[in-house]
Amino acid sequence: MKLSKDTIKLLQGKNFASLATVNKDGSPQVSIVWIDYEDELILINTAKGRLKTNNMQRDPRVSISITDSENPYYQVTIKGSVVEITEDGAVYHINSLAKKYLNEERFPVVDDEVRVKIKISPEKTYIMK
Amino acid sequence: MKLSKDTIKLLQGKNFASLATVNKDGSPQVSIVWIDYEDELILINTAKGRLKTNNMQRDPRVSISITDSENPYYQVTIKGSVVEITEDGAVYHINSLAKKYLNEERFPVVDDEVRVKIKISPEKTYIMK
Repeated sequence: MKLSKDTIKLLQGKNFASLATVNKDGSPQVSIVWIDYEDELILINTAKGRLKTNNMQRDPRVSISITDSENPYYQVTIKGSVVEITEDGAVYHINSLAKKYLNEERFPVVDDEVRVKIKISPEKTYIMK
Repeated sequence: MKLSKDTIKLLQGKNFASLATVNKDGSPQVSIVWIDYEDELILINTAKGRLKTNNMQRDPRVSISITDSENPYYQVTIKGSVVEITEDGAVYHINSLAKKYLNEERFPVVDDEVRVKIKISPEKTYIMK
């Protein structure tokens, strides 16, 4: 699906998102993430081996809620599916997120940490009450 | 489990939480909620018939992430289980949340909406990276 201009603006802005995935035992998992938008896909950046990464590798279904940092009552929730988890360009991408969120040129990638860029295809959006 | 003083302070403060539940089809669902703490339980207030309410009735497992409104990088994630969904005191409770978050005496409960207070027992906390 194509996202609305307002939702894209929210994804491109300096706003935090909550990303929900499903654990192996079927229980839910949520974490706060930086978020981005490119080529009609939602982008997340995390590291290999993390709980959420493993969860999305096993089950691509996610739910994302983004809040406007200037108005906590303006929120969009997006149901989507992970279409790709890739190391390609992942360090470049986390640095671009560090620029957006922290105004830093580089994200301090920890030794032995392998960054991954996660591409999510949006399927449905909701305005939550 | 007993939560730490810092986590309790976060729950009692004017901070927003992300609540993740699991849909009937096993996919994750997330929404932003007001949050509260009482008698060693985490409290949420929502309405009967909502997706998250139905999800928690079917599967009590939840994941909650709370962000400090004054520092978005201070977050605690709590894994827990719903122990009670009750209408008792739910309107009083949503009004107390409206006071905390909006400084309003009353929350505008919509006609035909039945408020429910959801009590969640915390099982594990994480500081998310």
